[in-house]
Amino acid sequence: MTYHAGRHFLQIPGPTNVPDRVLRAMDMPTMDHRGPEFQAMAKRVLSGIRTIFQTKNPVVIYPASGTGAWEAALVNTLSPGDLCLMYETGHFASLWKKLAEKLGLRTEFIAGDWRHGADAAAIGERLKKDAGHEIKAVCVVHNETSTGCVSPISDVRKAIDAAGHPALLLVDTISSLGSIDYRHDEWGVDVTVGGSQKGLMLPPGLSFNAISDKAIAASKTASLPRSYWAWDEMLTMNESGFFPFTPATNLLYGLDAAIEMLHEEGLANVFARHQRHGAATRAAVEAWGLEVLCDEPAHHSGSLTAVMMPGGQGADALRKAILTRFDMSLGAGLSKLADKIFRIGHLGDFNDLTLIGTLGGVEMGLEAGGVPYRKGGVDAAMAVLAAANAGEARQAAE
Amino acid sequence: MTYHAGRHFLQIPGPTNVPDRVLRAMDMPTMDHRGPEFQAMAKRVLSGIRTIFQTKNPVVIYPASGTGAWEAALVNTLSPGDLCLMYETGHFASLWKKLAEKLGLRTEFIAGDWRHGADAAAIGERLKKDAGHEIKAVCVVHNETSTGCVSPISDVRKAIDAAGHPALLLVDTISSLGSIDYRHDEWGVDVTVGGSQKGLMLPPGLSFNAISDKAIAASKTASLPRSYWAWDEMLTMNESGFFPFTPATNLLYGLDAAIEMLHEEGLANVFARHQRHGAATRAAVEAWGLEVLCDEPAHHSGSLTAVMMPGGQGADALRKAILTRFDMSLGAGLSKLADKIFRIGHLGDFNDLTLIGTLGGVEMGLEAGGVPYRKGGVDAAMAVLAAANAGEARQAAE
Amino acid sequence: MTYHAGRHFLQIPGPTNVPDRVLRAMDMPTMDHRGPEFQAMAKRVLSGIRTIFQTKNPVVIYPASGTGAWEAALVNTLSPGDLCLMYETGHFASLWKKLAEKLGLRTEFIAGDWRHGADAAAIGERLKKDAGHEIKAVCVVHNETSTGCVSPISDVRKAIDAAGHPALLLVDTISSLGSIDYRHDEWGVDVTVGGSQKGLMLPPGLSFNAISDKAIAASKTASLPRSYWAWDEMLTMNESGFFPFTPATNLLYGLDAAIEMLHEEGLANVFARHQRHGAATRAAVEAWGLEVLCDEPAHHSGSLTAVMMPGGQGADALRKAILTRFDMSLGAGLSKLADKIFRIGHLGDFNDLTLIGTLGGVEMGLEAGGVPYRKGGVDAAMAVLAAANAGEARQAAE
Amino acid sequence: MTYHAGRHFLQIPGPTNVPDRVLRAMDMPTMDHRGPEFQAMAKRVLSGIRTIFQTKNPVVIYPASGTGAWEAALVNTLSPGDLCLMYETGHFASLWKKLAEKLGLRTEFIAGDWRHGADAAAIGERLKKDAGHEIKAVCVVHNETSTGCVSPISDVRKAIDAAGHPALLLVDTISSLGSIDYRHDEWGVDVTVGGSQKGLMLPPGLSFNAISDKAIAASKTASLPRSYWAWDEMLTMNESGFFPFTPATNLLYGLDAAIEMLHEEGLANVFARHQRHGAATRAAVEAWGLEVLCDEPAHHSGSLTAVMMPGGQGADALRKAILTRFDMSLGAGLSKLADKIFRIGHLGDFNDLTLIGTLGGVEMGLEAGGVPYRKGGVDAAMAVLAAANAGEARQAAE
Repeated sequence: MTYHAGRHFLQIPGPTNVPDRVLRAMDMPTMDHRGPEFQAMAKRVLSGIRTIFQTKNPVVIYPASGTGAWEAALVNTLSPGDLCLMYETGHFASLWKKLAEKLGLRTEFIAGDWRHGADAAAIGERLKKDAGHEIKAVCVVHNETSTGCVSPISDVRKAIDAAGHPALLLVDTISSLGSIDYRHDEWGVDVTVGGSQKGLMLPPGLSFNAISDKAIAASKTASLPRSYWAWDEMLTMNESGFFPFTPATNLLYGLDAAIEMLHEEGLANVFARHQRHGAATRAAVEAWGLEVLCDEPAHHSGSLTAVMMPGGQGADALRKAILTRFDMSLGAGLSKLADKIFRIGHLGDFNDLTLIGTLGGVEMGLEAGGVPYRKGGVDAAMAVLAAANAGEARQAAE
Repeated sequence: MTYHAGRHFLQIPGPTNVPDRVLRAMDMPTMDHRGPEFQAMAKRVLSGIRTIFQTKNPVVIYPASGTGAWEAALVNTLSPGDLCLMYETGHFASLWKKLAEKLGLRTEFIAGDWRHGADAAAIGERLKKDAGHEIKAVCVVHNETSTGCVSPISDVRKAIDAAGHPALLLVDTISSLGSIDYRHDEWGVDVTVGGSQKGLMLPPGLSFNAISDKAIAASKTASLPRSYWAWDEMLTMNESGFFPFTPATNLLYGLDAAIEMLHEEGLANVFARHQRHGAATRAAVEAWGLEVLCDEPAHHSGSLTAVMMPGGQGADALRKAILTRFDMSLGAGLSKLADKIFRIGHLGDFNDLTLIGTLGGVEMGLEAGGVPYRKGGVDAAMAVLAAANAGEARQAAE
Repeated sequence: MTYHAGRHFLQIPGPTNVPDRVLRAMDMPTMDHRGPEFQAMAKRVLSGIRTIFQTKNPVVIYPASGTGAWEAALVNTLSPGDLCLMYETGHFASLWKKLAEKLGLRTEFIAGDWRHGADAAAIGERLKKDAGHEIKAVCVVHNETSTGCVSPISDVRKAIDAAGHPALLLVDTISSLGSIDYRHDEWGVDVTVGGSQKGLMLPPGLSFNAISDKAIAASKTASLPRSYWAWDEMLTMNESGFFPFTPATNLLYGLDAAIEMLHEEGLANVFARHQRHGAATRAAVEAWGLEVLCDEPAHHSGSLTAVMMPGGQGADALRKAILTRFDMSLGAGLSKLADKIFRIGHLGDFNDLTLIGTLGGVEMGLEAGGVPYRKGGVDAAMAVLAAANAGEARQAAE
Repeated sequence: MTYHAGRHFLQIPGPTNVPDRVLRAMDMPTMDHRGPEFQAMAKRVLSGIRTIFQTKNPVVIYPASGTGAWEAALVNTLSPGDLCLMYETGHFASLWKKLAEKLGLRTEFIAGDWRHGADAAAIGERLKKDAGHEIKAVCVVHNETSTGCVSPISDVRKAIDAAGHPALLLVDTISSLGSIDYRHDEWGVDVTVGGSQKGLMLPPGLSFNAISDKAIAASKTASLPRSYWAWDEMLTMNESGFFPFTPATNLLYGLDAAIEMLHEEGLANVFARHQRHGAATRAAVEAWGLEVLCDEPAHHSGSLTAVMMPGGQGADALRKAILTRFDMSLGAGLSKLADKIFRIGHLGDFNDLTLIGTLGGVEMGLEAGGVPYRKGGVDAAMAVLAAANAGEARQAAE
């Protein structure tokens, strides 16, 4: 082991920096998952997690990565050969599509340029043409982690309704949940897919399905084979605070703490903080003379910012130089964006000063890496932060 | 929160008591799962876990409960409608069977009385009758957690071979791995299913598939739909120390520590310790005038001991009394054994003195609960321990 | 590092087993000891610690071992050459006497046989003879950690009063505080010395002086040189929640948790639990045919039990055998009791089952070490525990 | 409890940010401080701590704050009424002087302006006048924590020698040890006083005396009363890895880890890192148009930088605004500097990006607090860091 002074800056767009309070909550003896103490904790968590999805409906918690919850959303609601309309927001939308195909579903992709969120109008157009209702589900990524573009989920819902189409709406919020405002009930989403390791500030290992009544109804007739991911037994057992198979007890301890913490800060403050950090980061990128990948201001993400490298410069060499010299991890460009962008995660347990350190590391890295840029990014970010409402100020000090 | 003095005795047959060293290893910042530091750790873990299964072949690690690894073993190797020959050792064998059926497999159960491990001869007989090789897999639970009976896996392999049958051999070692001698390669097992929360001394949340070449070959043609559980991409990515989706990073830290610890003690010593604790526990049960559920000495488990309640006495009232008065959790009887037995877990991070405390709690609980019994159980256990080879003695003190 | 399965049994009479909740409370970032967050915590701790000493007066908290608090009690209240009347209860009383002499005090020892607590009548007799009030302080150890004998502090106070003597009463409660009922105010003690690492369930590193008004008055004229231990600046700063020099912040976090935990259990329950464990241990010793060092039933300790070895047998060889074979640490005989006794600590974060494990380790150790003894000690202890009021039962399970 | 997103920036000049690895090392069960496992650890620590003081002589470790080690240095080497020549570098030098007086020593202060380290020539002049060798000790603070000025200890030694004076040289390194190059042996220091909570990256609670042969010789005749602080029994017991009274076991675990970490980075790299961070901070202060308190470039500290407020502006209001808005603690001005300066701690577990975050917080705080300043401080610091030798770069990534 070699000691590197100071904390590593984990500024990939997830997994995010896990707060001490969450880590310490997990660092406690595992308990009997069929006993009364577990039951009390599980009931609290199963109730609390609904508030994060902004739903009154049940949320299923899987001992699994987010990928598992993608699979769960599909196998519980669809039957072999069903057609899913998916939107190509980027790498993760593409992975979800591949996953659907592996499960025996048919998919149709509305092409995107990886620089915008989903186009609700295009989805509406396509649905209107589907007079026979062959399309059974519309799958959209809320915050595309590979690009930093947010899709307007509420608009997608409206487009589906306007088309009079019965398709289910399945949404991936893995990198937006607990960071960007998201309303499962109000927006009429049928299945929301979430994960533990981003805005929820936990290590990876838990994932979620928030489920509408319509989705539960669909699950009664859906015929894709399923067992681990099956909602029915899970929902039944959860009612009494238990699980059909051994849950990831210590991660649930952490989730219990994280939900409490998000409410201590207040969800509105959490969302405002992420927005502010996104704005400050984009100001820095602009000041550097670089380009933000997301090309539509309305789709800018509060969770992460993807930055395009100037011509001919490799992003991976820059990321490596920053890791080596400044002990900071940044996100790589994925698939067709490989080496063309780097991604700055500014989500989770994160504050203004850590953002300044992060942007300082990028600015010094651009210098060290010989990338053409203009100084002043950190200054621009500080100006944004200074101007911002001090909503998250530490009032306790008063 | 209410403080109860001293440590809770978590003597269910898993999840087991997690050692401080494992909990502390997990209580560290989550790292970039695509970076060089993670890669080094993952390579070490992926290599080390093979030694625990006693295999030179790959072991797939899932961010999932053991139930997920059951599912993985089936979906990777079988096709819809395939027939699985399963052996009814108890509750968990029955659950695995139900799971197989949910996935679209056909199953056939060799009936058992829940008081013995699998009968290798019966399996051989059945296979001999299957001239058309309709049976594609034989599924056996090594250590049936609901009964405390161990199945002779090596004999099952021999019986399959003697029958000249090509069926795959799939084995569940969830409650024996790292506790009872188990040899994936030597015994010719095709897929071994394991979990983190028993002999591996981790919290729940990881599970495993150790895979033979024959199983990998079968996976090329097996057509059950799969994505999360699919071996192919996992095996490819694992070669370079990475995973196709976000792994449960902090649980991997713990696994890294646990593997190291098992080798510090020495696997042979680990197995001997569990055997000794099983023998001591059975001596106590006998002295109490109670009956061990497992009716075949060759099948006695080193991981847990299921104890039958004397006529008319409810096991659950006893367990509740022990939990209330002595802060110890014991395992309940499951399905048809409900309220008829209680199970004492003596696996994982456990030593002679903790066993004495455990058995003392049972003995005082029998007294407190008004259960007919004879005193002397703890004494009988101490006699067994005193006689045992002091192989695990703390030599460092010399 | 070599892994030894299961938890080490730390059954010396302190430091004791630190509960996870206390360790985790300490495992948090150090904070600014001059900031508002620290202030709030310190005020809570400085108030809470009074309840443990059962005093309404201030308690000074030192970043120091208990030995430091011994020194503090003397240097704050006495002047060079002052005479201290001390009672020879055992090794620690002797150490305190030596310490007083090093500081330039004169001491007089009332001889004891190390098998009883202090004799209040003898103290009273001596004081009556001191017509000139040459004796300035009476120093008594409440629970003599080297012998397991408790001194009747209330009787000592009465004897002093009956003698009409103005001497201060200084009492060491290092191994009784938070384990054995102790009442600073009601018993009229002037300075009570305490430490963190026994009944308070913390690691070593904090120590205490609870101070009567009379002691504070004495400190105004006492002329022994002092700075680190001086009460005056400490008491002034403490009023606003701060300290004159950097406090041991993380140990204070632990103390904050420990005070809360002791009140969750209830002090009366804590004391009853220790009494029960003392009684059960003595029953075991008697059943083994061995002798408890403490020769006066009224002085028996609830914190520890010192056991005399039968003729010719070395206690240290037995302790070493138990450490080697059973991973349990027991206390050694000190100074004139070296190798003649061993001490079983049963204080702090400890419960019935852990006591049974502890006594099982001793019983198996006696067997392994070839010490003449009779079996049945653990049985005798279980009988005592079973009969005891289930006052500390885990009511939460109801 | 109220959650504040992200980590608190603890940028007082100590206690410093404790690394996870140290906190986790401390978060382990307390062990028997008279057993073989403790002994092995203690021997390693007692040997390792010498390398940090750069001495081959013994280092005494106290369970105490740094103030205690100040007292220890004096009471072990001096007798009542002895004269100490002390140098008024600032608040802490003044406190040490008061402490000496409380212990019955006489003191003489060479006046300083709190903007420079000690003047070795002035010390030499004074000693030359002391023909009768009335002065028994020269006491100097290496890094004055209240001002950020470093005293040239090697020059002081030379001045003493040049004066042919036998006085002992006692040096306080509380806020320089493990941060600024310090050489107990080479520089001929007699007693070096250190603490755990600064460059050693531990919580407060341990302090140190590194001792020359001459100091040990002096202790044989020194007659100030002492017990807790007495070296003699400590040095004797330490030889076998034990302590005369209960040590602060868990803090020793942390110290064990911290020593290992400092050597992993390499002491030369540690010192260079602190120098770089001092230089970068001063560049920021200059760019802001503010003044560094330390008026002599040769005395600039690598541990902390004290910044003078422009006329009429209160430092405490600024610090409070920064704490409230940016969750960062800065050091206050002490005694005559109260409200006139603020102090930025940049020592301990700290890296380039955290420094940028820290300076960003100050710059945004100046803006928010309405303090007259010029922008560009963070930019100036980044320029210094970018130019610096990438000596601490994370080579593991290669």
